Amino acid sequence: MNSQNPLFIPGPTNIPDTIRKACDMPVIDHRSAAFAEILNPARANVRAVLRSESAEIFLFTATGTAGWEVALTNTLSSGDRVLAVRNGMFSQRWVAMAERLGLDVLVIDVPWGEDIPAERIADALADDNGHAIKAVLATHNETATGVTSDIAAVRAAIDGAGHTALLFVDGVSSIGSMDFRMDDWGIDVAVAGSQKGFMLPSGLAILGFSAKAMAATEEAELNRVFLDVRDMAASYAKGGYPYTPAVGLLNGLRVSSAMLLEEGLANVFARHARIADGVRAAVAAWNLPLCAARPEICSDTVSAIRTPEGFDAGRIVDHAMAKYGVAFGVGLGQLAGKAFRIGHLGSLTDVMTLGGIAAAEMAMSDLGLPIRPGAGVAAAQEVYRADRPVRAAAA
Amino acid sequence: MNSQNPLFIPGPTNIPDTIRKACDMPVIDHRSAAFAEILNPARANVRAVLRSESAEIFLFTATGTAGWEVALTNTLSSGDRVLAVRNGMFSQRWVAMAERLGLDVLVIDVPWGEDIPAERIADALADDNGHAIKAVLATHNETATGVTSDIAAVRAAIDGAGHTALLFVDGVSSIGSMDFRMDDWGIDVAVAGSQKGFMLPSGLAILGFSAKAMAATEEAELNRVFLDVRDMAASYAKGGYPYTPAVGLLNGLRVSSAMLLEEGLANVFARHARIADGVRAAVAAWNLPLCAARPEICSDTVSAIRTPEGFDAGRIVDHAMAKYGVAFGVGLGQLAGKAFRIGHLGSLTDVMTLGGIAAAEMAMSDLGLPIRPGAGVAAAQEVYRADRPVRAAAA
Amino acid sequence: MNSQNPLFIPGPTNIPDTIRKACDMPVIDHRSAAFAEILNPARANVRAVLRSESAEIFLFTATGTAGWEVALTNTLSSGDRVLAVRNGMFSQRWVAMAERLGLDVLVIDVPWGEDIPAERIADALADDNGHAIKAVLATHNETATGVTSDIAAVRAAIDGAGHTALLFVDGVSSIGSMDFRMDDWGIDVAVAGSQKGFMLPSGLAILGFSAKAMAATEEAELNRVFLDVRDMAASYAKGGYPYTPAVGLLNGLRVSSAMLLEEGLANVFARHARIADGVRAAVAAWNLPLCAARPEICSDTVSAIRTPEGFDAGRIVDHAMAKYGVAFGVGLGQLAGKAFRIGHLGSLTDVMTLGGIAAAEMAMSDLGLPIRPGAGVAAAQEVYRADRPVRAAAA
Amino acid sequence: MNSQNPLFIPGPTNIPDTIRKACDMPVIDHRSAAFAEILNPARANVRAVLRSESAEIFLFTATGTAGWEVALTNTLSSGDRVLAVRNGMFSQRWVAMAERLGLDVLVIDVPWGEDIPAERIADALADDNGHAIKAVLATHNETATGVTSDIAAVRAAIDGAGHTALLFVDGVSSIGSMDFRMDDWGIDVAVAGSQKGFMLPSGLAILGFSAKAMAATEEAELNRVFLDVRDMAASYAKGGYPYTPAVGLLNGLRVSSAMLLEEGLANVFARHARIADGVRAAVAAWNLPLCAARPEICSDTVSAIRTPEGFDAGRIVDHAMAKYGVAFGVGLGQLAGKAFRIGHLGSLTDVMTLGGIAAAEMAMSDLGLPIRPGAGVAAAQEVYRADRPVRAAAA
Repeated sequence: MNSQNPLFIPGPTNIPDTIRKACDMPVIDHRSAAFAEILNPARANVRAVLRSESAEIFLFTATGTAGWEVALTNTLSSGDRVLAVRNGMFSQRWVAMAERLGLDVLVIDVPWGEDIPAERIADALADDNGHAIKAVLATHNETATGVTSDIAAVRAAIDGAGHTALLFVDGVSSIGSMDFRMDDWGIDVAVAGSQKGFMLPSGLAILGFSAKAMAATEEAELNRVFLDVRDMAASYAKGGYPYTPAVGLLNGLRVSSAMLLEEGLANVFARHARIADGVRAAVAAWNLPLCAARPEICSDTVSAIRTPEGFDAGRIVDHAMAKYGVAFGVGLGQLAGKAFRIGHLGSLTDVMTLGGIAAAEMAMSDLGLPIRPGAGVAAAQEVYRADRPVRAAAA
Repeated sequence: MNSQNPLFIPGPTNIPDTIRKACDMPVIDHRSAAFAEILNPARANVRAVLRSESAEIFLFTATGTAGWEVALTNTLSSGDRVLAVRNGMFSQRWVAMAERLGLDVLVIDVPWGEDIPAERIADALADDNGHAIKAVLATHNETATGVTSDIAAVRAAIDGAGHTALLFVDGVSSIGSMDFRMDDWGIDVAVAGSQKGFMLPSGLAILGFSAKAMAATEEAELNRVFLDVRDMAASYAKGGYPYTPAVGLLNGLRVSSAMLLEEGLANVFARHARIADGVRAAVAAWNLPLCAARPEICSDTVSAIRTPEGFDAGRIVDHAMAKYGVAFGVGLGQLAGKAFRIGHLGSLTDVMTLGGIAAAEMAMSDLGLPIRPGAGVAAAQEVYRADRPVRAAAA
Repeated sequence: MNSQNPLFIPGPTNIPDTIRKACDMPVIDHRSAAFAEILNPARANVRAVLRSESAEIFLFTATGTAGWEVALTNTLSSGDRVLAVRNGMFSQRWVAMAERLGLDVLVIDVPWGEDIPAERIADALADDNGHAIKAVLATHNETATGVTSDIAAVRAAIDGAGHTALLFVDGVSSIGSMDFRMDDWGIDVAVAGSQKGFMLPSGLAILGFSAKAMAATEEAELNRVFLDVRDMAASYAKGGYPYTPAVGLLNGLRVSSAMLLEEGLANVFARHARIADGVRAAVAAWNLPLCAARPEICSDTVSAIRTPEGFDAGRIVDHAMAKYGVAFGVGLGQLAGKAFRIGHLGSLTDVMTLGGIAAAEMAMSDLGLPIRPGAGVAAAQEVYRADRPVRAAAA
Repeated sequence: MNSQNPLFIPGPTNIPDTIRKACDMPVIDHRSAAFAEILNPARANVRAVLRSESAEIFLFTATGTAGWEVALTNTLSSGDRVLAVRNGMFSQRWVAMAERLGLDVLVIDVPWGEDIPAERIADALADDNGHAIKAVLATHNETATGVTSDIAAVRAAIDGAGHTALLFVDGVSSIGSMDFRMDDWGIDVAVAGSQKGFMLPSGLAILGFSAKAMAATEEAELNRVFLDVRDMAASYAKGGYPYTPAVGLLNGLRVSSAMLLEEGLANVFARHARIADGVRAAVAAWNLPLCAARPEICSDTVSAIRTPEGFDAGRIVDHAMAKYGVAFGVGLGQLAGKAFRIGHLGSLTDVMTLGGIAAAEMAMSDLGLPIRPGAGVAAAQEVYRADRPVRAAAA
């Protein structure tokens, strides 16, 4: 009887009924005109969610991980140098992928919990007189640590260095939930997945390519076929798809992206900020530190919470599931056993979140952590009663 | 974005996904053998949920209100005298129905919040030397006041008086959630609906008839056709239904009743008792009185909570929906404006309930009631952490 | 693997995916404003489908059989005389219901297969100088025989006799599929169900009451509570429902009735006429007679087909299900064993219908009837290729 | 109102209701134990459908096209030589992919409509003294031409030549519908997709790897990350998945593969053979040639039908959709305009197929082809009435 509890993992998120029904479609002929009536608005809506006027939008029947690979293989050649910041498990995985693909990855390592240091990017690019660096890889929201970075600052660093590198941004756990501006921030490739802000099941890699990135696809020599955006672009031009697509997911994306736009992106972001503020207020009431190094870089989609030295944080996740039927995220990589994560993105309400906070504090109390039950809930209630976003969202 | 909040009205309840899918059936031919494979197990399962060995089970495509009418019109004739206890809005409605059907209703009125006074039933029956009283109408669980009555005591009163009256029990908001024993308690007609303990949408009136009640159907002269159990019985005998049934709901009932039996009725009741204990602990922490006059008659499926004199309780319900998207029940009848209700039956988890409690206390605080946010949640958490039913359920 | 075959019973019909999803709703609070947003458009749409400007529309959580009872018990008193035509199983059942309810039923019997003889109604009313006849009961479409009657002619007969009797019309298997005009035809109570032209599961009785019928409800003394339109009207006036309704079905009705109106009733009727013409062409090619006595009274929603003397028509139905997984309707009442029925209403396409025709002719050939496989299909194909309604639909 | 027609494209196929519901899951935590309870039986069932005892089964959140790429990139290195037969559009695409990935593809071209010439494979391998050929690529069922090849003969050719090449088989449109024996035929990599015999939406690439293929993954140097089976294998070993999977599709696969096994593969194949025989009988009645060069190589999942010289076959597909709402497949590549295709795989019944045949002949007649309506249907009916597979299926 636990199946109706909301999820508090940082994706996949709870799926609204409307979106589930949009995905659960009878099969149509994907070579018929009916398919274009799904694909075209889905692409247009995604472009609007990315806040781009002109990005090419690609929707692969794959996952966000494939999205990273699309970005790299479609724009780069073996041995190309890229610059990447590593501040958590997901940025680390992207670095590892780039290395496995034969790229020469220059890594800026910062402690997990920190955000992207734009000044170090600026320095690295300034040192790169020959413009050997072809691309900068930036993770907008590090899902492992709950840290959001300032992509506008990264763009400013690139521009300040007068550098030609492309800017690739992993927005898997930010796009559709937090302020993201492809055009304003000069992003060349934006990577998203279906199962986070878009509130869908996993199964789509969602990408935006700038004109500059599109130009790079002509030179890129890394192998790709299934993930080749050129095949995708050629098919889109005819209202089709290069192979049999996951039509139901695309229809779900058409609907979910329309929901986001109808709510208004600023409102969507404010809602996430309000929900996140409540979670952070609860964490403060628990006297537990967030992994995020500073308040202003805390993520509005996931909070990674450090547990006391000597306590295995994984026990919270196991116990909350076993006793209360609630899923939280474990600590990943160097945070394994040292942190647990509360996902708070997608289709969540204040009330659902309060249930999750209550579950977390029961689990922690049960396990002997000095958490006063109700304390976190009360702190979050104060935020939610205030009836306004405490952190202003983008206009 | 509020649509995913659980409901806290005393029915209809939240519907588990499995049950929604069982209801959402492709159409079948209800005159084919496939229909009997739905109807027969549904009836057998309901009989087990009623804890009867031999009751005739009738499943009408109608609602619980129709169920009351089935009980009366199939067993009684115009002018027949019935004895009823009125202790809330739903018992009052049954009385009113009986009167509109031309029955002579002897009413025992008790203050709302009280349970059925078995001794007064005993007295009334003792006075009825000629056995003019044909039936006793008892509401097992008064949904308006959150009061559960002792049906075994009613049976003892009837037996003690050596009276032949039939015993009709409205178990709409108890059956499938609280201990209910058709055979042990000598119930002649048990009335349930699909949308409470059975966790289905509204649309089925569910009845159990004892052999004695079946015998009464031969003499009963009140008009009925659509609600005639004799037509139903005749069709069942052939694996069919006297008209086109709501097949999907019957299939849902087949599945949901099987779920209850698989969980074990004792476990189902213990779960409801634990959830209810948490709600009551929260109410106590709020320093608000329940409508129920005494702790031992508090319902495990709904709590009716009195608000302070001069405060319109309906504002809590309106505000909780408007600001937090959570549905509570209003006070009904003489409790209108004086109480609000938290339904806690069907498919609910501790965590969902904590969200509802949190919503109620936010709403009350917002409206100026002296509720400390988090207080009710903390009290309920203590109950839920204990990991055992505080009030023992039936073995 | 037969489950995906369409049904060819005369209701319930195949349910389009959109309508199934509209029915499969998460539970809402039926006392909240959200419910009125379902109920009100559903009622308005039904009024338009009935082609009435001002009828009161009642939507009971029940079935079409209950709808008959609503018509009778809300307008009549015990012993009232009604005039009814009996020309098939469903008109017979309505007569039987009226008799069981204590009405004095004057029956005009015509052979099954004939339509309503308006002149005999005229005669009966002319003989009724005292206007003892309170209502005329007419079955618009006899589902047992596949015969449609001329309700305008019945109205003309009543008016011609200067009689005050109310006109009750069973439109269960015609409304939403065939021309039906509540206002133009002076119908006082129109009865429909959810599971035919409205393409929904069974579970709603759908009624239209004229002002004259509404007036009669004040005088009517037959017992009714669950089916009392006055309670319904009082609740509707407050945006509510007198008890817990089948919200999902009402939402489905809101959607399905909107679909009918959007397609345009004339187009819906033309579609049914075209499909029916194809079926009739197939039956002619099989050299089998329809039960309908004359071509101009053939129903556009169901065809009842007589099989040769000495052949048990039920075998076709059993065999088609057992071997081909296709459901046809059996002969009912005096047609049992002598006819089988092909339902062709609701959401059916030419192509689905051709599959059904092909199945029928395979079954008949298998059983030794002198049917040439393909003959009926070819005849129907000719109709469907013509791409126009052969019988003109209402403008 | 055409939306309920079955599809007659060669995939995606019609999806049974049970499978749609299995896919339409509430989100679960894919890092929890619940996920392994989906993944593990899905993999075990697929292994059984492939008729393998020990193949490693990989389920990628991608499509069949990605499956081809998985086969190549996980086992080969740049410049490796592979041998491929090209006899239709899909084999041609696999060749093109191999070339784009930098492989040296030795192509055996045969006319479209022919099957794989095992003797020419034998010759090519015999010539390859140095065993430069690392793999043989064989398309079991050419979806473009409706031709099934004899994979056992290919295996015999490899063995006869004493060659060490791996055998990769595209079974996208055969696996789950036609006899396929991974172990018996010595297949090293089998490629399937979710949207054909498995009756699911598109979105999964389904692969079986032999031990020899697994060994090759250690040497293979082609780039792959998202599609790397080693990451997949490592995650499976822990009950997980290397990234966020399409859990609903995996659950659908668990259910659909269980349905196939419960029906019995021999029965599934016989069913497809019977349905296909009916389609072929219809085509013969139309006096149109199949693209397949000989009867014994005709596919049981798709029939490609040549239209008369000078007639644009695409018009049939367009017209059938526009007028009758039925989807057929167009001719692809060199068959564009010269053939159309009827898909007959997955969840289809005789009766649904007869509807499709009827639609095709109406469309062809409408367009002036000398087709007698009903002729094809009658021919197919004869097959379906026979109630036995005309071509024996595998035991």
